[in-house]
Amino acid sequence: MTTAARRGGIAAATPAGPADPADSLHPGQRWLSRELASPPGRVVIEHVRPAVNGGRFPVKRVVGDVFTVTASIFAEGHDQLSAILHYRRRGARSWSETAMTLLRNDQWQGGFPLESLGMYEYYVTGCVDEFASWRHALERKVRAGLEVSSELLEGARIVESVATHAEDDRTWLGLQARDLREGTDRPARIAAALDPQLLTRMTRHLDRGRATRSEPVLLVDVDRERARSGAWYEMFPRSASPEPGRHGTFADCIDRLPYVASMGFDVLYLPPIHPIGVTHRKGRNNARVAESGDVGSPWAIGSADGGHDAVHPALGTLADFDRLLEEAKLFDIEIALDIAWQCSPDHPWIREHPEWFRHRPDGTIQYAENPPKKYEDIVPLHFATPRWRELWEELLRVVRFWIDRGVKIFRVDNPHTKPFAFWEWLIRTIKDDHPDVIFLSEAFTRPSVMRYLAKCGFTQSYTYFTWRNTKEELTEYLTELCNTEIADYLRPNLFANTPDILHEVLQSGGRAAHQIRFVLAATLAGSYGIYGPHFELAESRAVAGTEEYLDSEKYQLRHWQLDQPASLAPFIGHVNRIRRENPAFRHPERLRFLTVDNEHLIAYTRSTPDGGNLMIVVVNLSPYHAHRGWLELPLEALGLEADQPFQAHDLLSNARFLWRGSRNFVALDPREAPAHIFRVRRRLRTEHDFDYYM
Amino acid sequence: MTTAARRGGIAAATPAGPADPADSLHPGQRWLSRELASPPGRVVIEHVRPAVNGGRFPVKRVVGDVFTVTASIFAEGHDQLSAILHYRRRGARSWSETAMTLLRNDQWQGGFPLESLGMYEYYVTGCVDEFASWRHALERKVRAGLEVSSELLEGARIVESVATHAEDDRTWLGLQARDLREGTDRPARIAAALDPQLLTRMTRHLDRGRATRSEPVLLVDVDRERARSGAWYEMFPRSASPEPGRHGTFADCIDRLPYVASMGFDVLYLPPIHPIGVTHRKGRNNARVAESGDVGSPWAIGSADGGHDAVHPALGTLADFDRLLEEAKLFDIEIALDIAWQCSPDHPWIREHPEWFRHRPDGTIQYAENPPKKYEDIVPLHFATPRWRELWEELLRVVRFWIDRGVKIFRVDNPHTKPFAFWEWLIRTIKDDHPDVIFLSEAFTRPSVMRYLAKCGFTQSYTYFTWRNTKEELTEYLTELCNTEIADYLRPNLFANTPDILHEVLQSGGRAAHQIRFVLAATLAGSYGIYGPHFELAESRAVAGTEEYLDSEKYQLRHWQLDQPASLAPFIGHVNRIRRENPAFRHPERLRFLTVDNEHLIAYTRSTPDGGNLMIVVVNLSPYHAHRGWLELPLEALGLEADQPFQAHDLLSNARFLWRGSRNFVALDPREAPAHIFRVRRRLRTEHDFDYYM
Repeated sequence: MTTAARRGGIAAATPAGPADPADSLHPGQRWLSRELASPPGRVVIEHVRPAVNGGRFPVKRVVGDVFTVTASIFAEGHDQLSAILHYRRRGARSWSETAMTLLRNDQWQGGFPLESLGMYEYYVTGCVDEFASWRHALERKVRAGLEVSSELLEGARIVESVATHAEDDRTWLGLQARDLREGTDRPARIAAALDPQLLTRMTRHLDRGRATRSEPVLLVDVDRERARSGAWYEMFPRSASPEPGRHGTFADCIDRLPYVASMGFDVLYLPPIHPIGVTHRKGRNNARVAESGDVGSPWAIGSADGGHDAVHPALGTLADFDRLLEEAKLFDIEIALDIAWQCSPDHPWIREHPEWFRHRPDGTIQYAENPPKKYEDIVPLHFATPRWRELWEELLRVVRFWIDRGVKIFRVDNPHTKPFAFWEWLIRTIKDDHPDVIFLSEAFTRPSVMRYLAKCGFTQSYTYFTWRNTKEELTEYLTELCNTEIADYLRPNLFANTPDILHEVLQSGGRAAHQIRFVLAATLAGSYGIYGPHFELAESRAVAGTEEYLDSEKYQLRHWQLDQPASLAPFIGHVNRIRRENPAFRHPERLRFLTVDNEHLIAYTRSTPDGGNLMIVVVNLSPYHAHRGWLELPLEALGLEADQPFQAHDLLSNARFLWRGSRNFVALDPREAPAHIFRVRRRLRTEHDFDYYM
Repeated sequence: MTTAARRGGIAAATPAGPADPADSLHPGQRWLSRELASPPGRVVIEHVRPAVNGGRFPVKRVVGDVFTVTASIFAEGHDQLSAILHYRRRGARSWSETAMTLLRNDQWQGGFPLESLGMYEYYVTGCVDEFASWRHALERKVRAGLEVSSELLEGARIVESVATHAEDDRTWLGLQARDLREGTDRPARIAAALDPQLLTRMTRHLDRGRATRSEPVLLVDVDRERARSGAWYEMFPRSASPEPGRHGTFADCIDRLPYVASMGFDVLYLPPIHPIGVTHRKGRNNARVAESGDVGSPWAIGSADGGHDAVHPALGTLADFDRLLEEAKLFDIEIALDIAWQCSPDHPWIREHPEWFRHRPDGTIQYAENPPKKYEDIVPLHFATPRWRELWEELLRVVRFWIDRGVKIFRVDNPHTKPFAFWEWLIRTIKDDHPDVIFLSEAFTRPSVMRYLAKCGFTQSYTYFTWRNTKEELTEYLTELCNTEIADYLRPNLFANTPDILHEVLQSGGRAAHQIRFVLAATLAGSYGIYGPHFELAESRAVAGTEEYLDSEKYQLRHWQLDQPASLAPFIGHVNRIRRENPAFRHPERLRFLTVDNEHLIAYTRSTPDGGNLMIVVVNLSPYHAHRGWLELPLEALGLEADQPFQAHDLLSNARFLWRGSRNFVALDPREAPAHIFRVRRRLRTEHDFDYYM
């Protein structure tokens, strides 16, 4: 067992049942009971944000971010307060501190830089600042010309009491207190009292013995940039062969890398690469019975050739796979693997660990089903088996196996059918050792379950994006994902299509619909993906009445002619270059929808937190008709001046528009271009400089 | 020391400082650490509502309410769940249970009746219902005509396992399991499996050993109806004398009761009735120095005649006060007293307990001040004195003293300058013994402090209502108070004026402005108050440039001529009768603003939870000009039919309007009436009944 597995700790045998609720009031209530009689301190700290489920789960952020924390902090009366944000890398021995500042209405804010990957902890303390309160009242009285001799004596007493325990400042503070008490005249005593250096030193020695501390200590999980933003390309390796009819190999995938790189993708995601079972193997188009030569579904994992830690012999060897990983690096492409915790009936685990499966009264193992869908070629693992500890440890071992080969990104199949606790434990245990690993959750299920999987640790999540097509649907859904507290823990990855989902819009809308959905996916959030070459070739024939691709690669080899004139590959490459060159697209939380007076036109801005890179995207949602409309820009919020022209540079067409004011005309014909992706160039010089824009 | 004081428990000496944060992660995180290794159960329970600060404070409700609790409850996969709402009166030995029902999207709801005053506890459990899940899958398979013999054996196994521990149902379940396993034919076995009685009994014996329990246990504080709704009248007893120049007495107050009752008030609130200090006594209109015969501010509490547990000799004796309490009961009026934890320099505590006050370096006690305001006649108590335990216990004793005489309602002066912990302890300790006691918080301070005082236990709270006068201000503020989670803990009491606040609108708007503000106060929330006879006589002369009444009763006796023709007393009585006769006004959470196309007209509905009593209030906010407009009614939400007429009966004018559809005309002239208070009468019979409305 590895260190982290032990740390992950699954030693106890059963989930916890309800304890006696009598002792289970909120801890903050306990001082009111007979036994605990120490009242809370004067300072209240409420609403420390961000926090996921009150601290039950970590917040997610990316390395290099400044992590901003806000809280309501106040006390009774009118005293001045001081608030500190405390933080450390998890496991560090000591805490760092940074002062929080009062914004307004008892709202305080502080921040610290997230300098390395992994978990940070943070909490907030607040206390009454007796000296600052005294000083503030003195200032008001001095300004009002009031008698303050008693106040000066009080101040001297405060300074003296601090001086007694202020090691290095003891002498200085003692002298200052003497000036307050016995200064030559009233002005000299007041000057000593209001000396800014006295305030600085007194603040340094502020007595935090009675400070209030926010509870619980909160967590923020710091990932690398790829966790937040990246362009994903999904491809079946077995269809990568240049020769029709020959099973593709890892070597063919290596040959495909320049093509994928030319489109500008960051991640190449491969469906399962493991041996495929033969028992109940599915035929082409999901036929109940396979015919000779049918290759079966890659998700029917396991055969005599091995299970989840083996590769399908037809694809090559583990050494070949290792070479693919190496070659991909040369193109700045990361290989993502699929994790599908399920087995074909021929998986070695079924023979070696029958106790990991649920047996029916007739002795058989129930295949997977979601009536009326049946997956006779797949049997599920029994996660609640009495031997769950061994099962969970084995699955952890499998993930480590691929990490040890160099894989750092996993797309997880159907996580919503496995226990939440399993995922929380697995992902935390892996990330304790490998904070750069990314898990993408493929859960198309109820919203609460999708969100909870994200809370349990999944780095990114598939979404309902494929089923959100109208302006209203897209606006509502992306606002929810990017501009609510959901964004603190769930990072959307907008897949435009998948081997399971060919939306009707793509089936009927042809090449233009593919362009439209691509621009939306690529510009609405941080991460997105397509499943190719179907997508870039707009190959969208479906099994009638379904969202399934006809002749799906899930059940058969396909041969692809990539160099078609109509291929979207150059367009995709162009958009991905725009994404890379404009950091605005790495900040999904900076999404803002704009008003356009045409329901077929959707418009939104993306920007960097400092506003320096500002993009305006306008998409014609109709693949059939040209649409035009007036776009409303909230100039002030965008940092644009109402009376100064600015340039909207469409990076797709390279056209430049001179705009001024909040209302601007846009027109898009899907036969020419589905979208504008404007970069806003603010005027920085006057017209006399002859160089109007930068 | 009383029982409850001991229970309140203030034995420890100092507020708690921060503990070691290392052990302070959210309890839900702990299973991921090395030591605690038992993973959470399969079922997740999130977002249990209502809850105040995650259970740190009780929710507030009123006796007779059905308390509705919602939660997100779900598990991985597709199993059927069962959820239970557990509740008990605090301190009861056993818990009651009620089944929750699934609304949609993993949202569950349950409820229980609040049958008595005091604190209830509640929590939620959820578990996987193995039998129901199996039954649901069986139904789908049977409907699809699939082979289910193995399923029936599985079902038999489930039933048998339950039968072994199902005492009274053991035999019946055993027989049923046999029918599943060995029934005469397939239809008989399926019929046995789907027998509704089997489902009922299996549900009864559902194994909750692996149930998930929501944490923490939550609290709901159940008050009497007066906590939520009531009409308050504030009056200075010393101005109640019928003879000009004579100091009013409790006997005069008794004589005033019929007048107050005729206006329909529920609560008669008296400013402090205690002996008034002479040192630094304020003169008329807050003069720095009192003249001979000046009576001083009632808030300068304490003299040689006694302190907070004495009455001012000029008002009468304690026996006289007791008689006022008794007489008021005959008019269904409750007497509310003022709690002002402060002292005149002559208060007995200053001599007996100098350690309860903060002494300045020159030996004096600092008077109260909030620069530039000075209260030389008042010294504050030092709540953080090292002898705070004795001080707090004495204040508790004072409250008990008045409760023992029969006072059940207290208006608390300036609570925001005393520690939150003091209030939480005092109110909880009192209410443990006297759950019918009501505390009204007079805190005009920052929103977070006002809200936190409510969380700490105050039954009702003064608000910013007096400073919210435009349609936009009123709509935004009352929506926040009545239609957000703030309503779970803060109950507004809308005072239209107070001895400290004579808003400019009342200063300049005359009688009409008083009517307008009165209707708003009386119909926008559950509780409201006026300070009379100033208010009903529209006596609104101010100290120039301030919100202070001229010749304020705070500093002098006033004599009132009550039977003026222009008095609003009859109007007030009319509105209060409408309030009493229409239970809609007891449900502030049922406030809904309506659209009117005139910014001077504000309109809203109030209703009972069942919608049976539906009121529409329209107010012309201008005291100067008539205004008219079109009112938009959301018919469906109001339970009105679009194609049926309904009657809007203006209970103020007794005029009846026949309305149909969502758009209706309204016009209000402040010279005639400031408002409509419509009762909506839905048509229940056809026109052939000749009796169109009920």
